[in-house]
Amino acid sequence: MKYFILGLIMFLSVQLNAQDTQSTNLNDEKKLYSKVLGEERRIAVYLPASYFDKGIKPATYPVVYVLDAERNFSYFSSHVDYLSRQPYASIPEMIVVGIYNTNRTKNFTPTKSAVQDPYNPSKKIFEDSGGNNTFLDFVEKELQPYIVEQYRTQNYKILVGHSFSGLATVNCFLTRPYLFNAYVANDPSLWWDNSVLVKTAEKLNFNRKDYNHKVLYISQAQDLGNNDVWSDDHDNAFEKFNAAMKNASNVDYHYQYYPNDHHGHVSLPANYDALKYIFKLFPTDYKRAMTDPKALINEPYTKLSEILGFEFNPSESYLNQLIKFSKSRNYPQAAMYFESEKQRLYGK
Amino acid sequence: MKYFILGLIMFLSVQLNAQDTQSTNLNDEKKLYSKVLGEERRIAVYLPASYFDKGIKPATYPVVYVLDAERNFSYFSSHVDYLSRQPYASIPEMIVVGIYNTNRTKNFTPTKSAVQDPYNPSKKIFEDSGGNNTFLDFVEKELQPYIVEQYRTQNYKILVGHSFSGLATVNCFLTRPYLFNAYVANDPSLWWDNSVLVKTAEKLNFNRKDYNHKVLYISQAQDLGNNDVWSDDHDNAFEKFNAAMKNASNVDYHYQYYPNDHHGHVSLPANYDALKYIFKLFPTDYKRAMTDPKALINEPYTKLSEILGFEFNPSESYLNQLIKFSKSRNYPQAAMYFESEKQRLYGK
Repeated sequence: MKYFILGLIMFLSVQLNAQDTQSTNLNDEKKLYSKVLGEERRIAVYLPASYFDKGIKPATYPVVYVLDAERNFSYFSSHVDYLSRQPYASIPEMIVVGIYNTNRTKNFTPTKSAVQDPYNPSKKIFEDSGGNNTFLDFVEKELQPYIVEQYRTQNYKILVGHSFSGLATVNCFLTRPYLFNAYVANDPSLWWDNSVLVKTAEKLNFNRKDYNHKVLYISQAQDLGNNDVWSDDHDNAFEKFNAAMKNASNVDYHYQYYPNDHHGHVSLPANYDALKYIFKLFPTDYKRAMTDPKALINEPYTKLSEILGFEFNPSESYLNQLIKFSKSRNYPQAAMYFESEKQRLYGK
Repeated sequence: MKYFILGLIMFLSVQLNAQDTQSTNLNDEKKLYSKVLGEERRIAVYLPASYFDKGIKPATYPVVYVLDAERNFSYFSSHVDYLSRQPYASIPEMIVVGIYNTNRTKNFTPTKSAVQDPYNPSKKIFEDSGGNNTFLDFVEKELQPYIVEQYRTQNYKILVGHSFSGLATVNCFLTRPYLFNAYVANDPSLWWDNSVLVKTAEKLNFNRKDYNHKVLYISQAQDLGNNDVWSDDHDNAFEKFNAAMKNASNVDYHYQYYPNDHHGHVSLPANYDALKYIFKLFPTDYKRAMTDPKALINEPYTKLSEILGFEFNPSESYLNQLIKFSKSRNYPQAAMYFESEKQRLYGK
């Protein structure tokens, strides 16, 4: 019999017939004056559905910081919402912080490197480049503390960027590995300034302790077959960067090529894959957990926590679902076990 | 030189530094009383960024109808927004209509087929099944006319469903091919009622004229390796359906297996892929179009229109971007050509 699929269908039907279909998650907008940058910055914040659930102890969440919010915040927060819905979640519920741009060339490039405009040789472009370290000071000293103060956060943090903001993400990974736990750089501009970051990576000792448990996910887009006008610089920089990361055995480095997605569109599928990649040990088999809850719930969380170097626990919402499910399916011992886990972790 | 990537980066930087980063698209919510269903239905509507652009002639848009809006509307409309941004668009700008559920088993199943609850053999489940044809009456006679009346639509329409609503999507394709131009069914419950829809498909003559230019995209999720509790019914139904579609040469039928996405999560990546699949001839090479605008803009649109059986044209927004770009890059002949196209299509 088709027990498994029937179970899924029944669950989906119940979930999708919910009386209150109004989304309960909140997209917040904040304006934050940065002394470091000397300007006001606009921030978008997505809070997960359970954030305001009064039936549970106020929960805490990991935080994803998404650069180029203009283009990436909307789908990224939808993806987090979609992938984190229990009991079939692939990732934990998370807060998403989107950072809108003021001057992205200035904020995201690690060095000053003006070049001739290829379309107008009498002009120079990228003259205001080189401000990424100041921008990262803003993230470290102002934005992260602000988010921690404003919202209920866990200290697991992910940084996501694309193109120039992917370059900034790699720069942060190379110079401030303590700032985030995982880094996602989509088709980053590694060719920048004669591949300056590739040279940094080649000299770096990734066996330093502060690189333990770090994840770096790099995507590369297709080259559109425009070989006539495409430089080899981009490809070469990726190749050299991959080579530099080969011996970084305590970094979980993943490089992924996207043959069907060009530079302008690679972020969406790559960010989806990157979230699943970072949390590959997250999904638990809640149906099988009915007969062996310790092995099928606790052990995956323990393993996940070991690999990511951060203590992840089943959320109270998830334990409530497990309790409900085990009672409805007549697994009283499993129900008791999950009740005791809830007591242990959330004190009720 | 890295002209191509520099062009992309420069474009992205300009776009992403826009002063007004407030999203201009609108997510509308409507309540619609259905006489056919005898109940009020809640509808979510996403309107593209250019919908309220006063600088262009009021534009019209194809419409995507998304079932199970609770789970799929948010990311789906974000995807449409992301993929349709010119000049690197993979799909046209479209209106997205999300339909929220009241009783999905009733609305989405084509036949009445109550079965024993596998977890509680004294109970029956799916007792209220069999109402999909009534639901499709609602879509045909009330919802589609309402959307056409309320918004500026083009008569190109896509239907999207998953699981039971994927079954409904296949049922609509089999019984009302005139209602939509393209159908996307994610891991549809083809096993329903002893594969009743597979039997319908096996008997159908897809060489009928009303199947010309129709697209059917079907995704199948991984089986999670739960072979012990998984029925072969689901797999068998897919196999037989694929076989039935083999000779449907005037339907653009595409079946895609997703080995890394389970039933609960397959819709998001499959819907992304399906949009790119339907509009695979949509992207134009606007850079090369500077030297041969007719071949690189008009001809792709003509080909796309032929294949999809519907006249698609470059939007006025897109023509404006092309004009601006050709002027800035000093291609006066291209600029003149796009101006004349704008005059021809939009009368100014």
